[in-house]
Amino acid sequence: MPVLRLLIEYDGTAFAGWQIQADARTVQGEVERALGVALRQPVGVVGAGRTDAGVHARGQVAHAVLDVPAGEAPDLRRLVHSLRGLLPPDVALRDAGWAPDGFHARYGATARHYRYHVTTRPTALERAWRLHLPAVPDWDAMNAAAALLVGRRDFSSLCRTQSETLNRVCHVTRAAWVPDDAGAPGAAWRFEISADRFLHGMVRAAVGTLLEVGRGRRTPDDLARVLDAADRRAAGPAAPPHGLVLHAVTYPDGAFASAP
Amino acid sequence: MPVLRLLIEYDGTAFAGWQIQADARTVQGEVERALGVALRQPVGVVGAGRTDAGVHARGQVAHAVLDVPAGEAPDLRRLVHSLRGLLPPDVALRDAGWAPDGFHARYGATARHYRYHVTTRPTALERAWRLHLPAVPDWDAMNAAAALLVGRRDFSSLCRTQSETLNRVCHVTRAAWVPDDAGAPGAAWRFEISADRFLHGMVRAAVGTLLEVGRGRRTPDDLARVLDAADRRAAGPAAPPHGLVLHAVTYPDGAFASAP
Repeated sequence: MPVLRLLIEYDGTAFAGWQIQADARTVQGEVERALGVALRQPVGVVGAGRTDAGVHARGQVAHAVLDVPAGEAPDLRRLVHSLRGLLPPDVALRDAGWAPDGFHARYGATARHYRYHVTTRPTALERAWRLHLPAVPDWDAMNAAAALLVGRRDFSSLCRTQSETLNRVCHVTRAAWVPDDAGAPGAAWRFEISADRFLHGMVRAAVGTLLEVGRGRRTPDDLARVLDAADRRAAGPAAPPHGLVLHAVTYPDGAFASAP
Repeated sequence: MPVLRLLIEYDGTAFAGWQIQADARTVQGEVERALGVALRQPVGVVGAGRTDAGVHARGQVAHAVLDVPAGEAPDLRRLVHSLRGLLPPDVALRDAGWAPDGFHARYGATARHYRYHVTTRPTALERAWRLHLPAVPDWDAMNAAAALLVGRRDFSSLCRTQSETLNRVCHVTRAAWVPDDAGAPGAAWRFEISADRFLHGMVRAAVGTLLEVGRGRRTPDDLARVLDAADRRAAGPAAPPHGLVLHAVTYPDGAFASAP
């Protein structure tokens, strides 16, 4: 049966997160609804990352196994056109394609890339996805601390306590704050973090802890102690969801690699 | 009397434009309201550009003459802090400073810089300020036509017919389409146009006409004929307001020059 692969951008502001829930508006719910109408059959969708309520995506990847014989897959161009007309304005279908047999958006992903956007000057046009910091933090200290996140280790200290995930080992391959305003370096910055997998609430806990370093409430070296504690209470509070964007997901076949 | 200079960003979506009107929500109205509360006196504000309903700004500049003796100007830091607390979320005070005596945000400006944002793939996170084009236009043809806009000449063909402006001569110093997505060149582009002054509806008429060139409905050379006609009916329809952003305003003293 043909496997449809979707590259999805969404504004998470008005969503209770990616994952479908009864009595709540979710991105997965909107995508399944649109696919069901376009294909005139119920269709389940699997996303690469289950973003929290209020978290956005530029490069969420999802797949759907269509209940038709392989030779009878619908025309891709027409399907994309239909889906774009059926999705609400806060969900944008950026790209779509047929995936190899057995493709799985979640289990097949080899890396996820998140970005957390902040600014020290208020913004109106980017307010939905950029956190306004009341004071200028110490970017150098935050980057010194961020460097300690890189590596393969137990990240229990950055995992939501309610999480039922037993394996808390992740391989973080990048963690850095970089200027995020080509026109006027200074006020707008973003935190880029990549890993093979992320735990529940991990990026927001990391950002909240790094912002405490930036405010001088922790030293960069504290990050090592936080991680060694393997206890969520050792880290700082979670940063608000609205600054966070699932930027891209990597697969071995390079699908959508240049898209976001 | 001290002259306060403001650098203002706004999301024009929910505004009937910059200029104050009875019974309509305007950016000027919101700024005057916030200043009046902060300073406990009625304060008039003059903006560099009167953006239309639905048009945004990253770098609108405005001034206000405060009704206090020069030596009794309020503390700038505290005033900025108050104003940021008083302005609504869709108006952001990016910066503020004291201007030289006699400064005038509108008459003192030597150049205005607008950007019009488009994409050939739908976007959710930038949908408030980026127009989705249903097909990929001919960017080269649009740039060949845009080059014909540069120079000092009569721009009546791009001026709204109801406009009462008698002098229709503007000096356009830049007009070009450039890729607008550092991460993934291709889908997102913007049109950059700079001039000493702009006529009513001029950028939207220019973009609407250039998009007809991009769709093959006009040739680049048609642009010369459109301008020579000195008749609004010779140009294409106005592009929608939501893609347009007043990006920056230039003054002889270089104020806020690096800000947007």
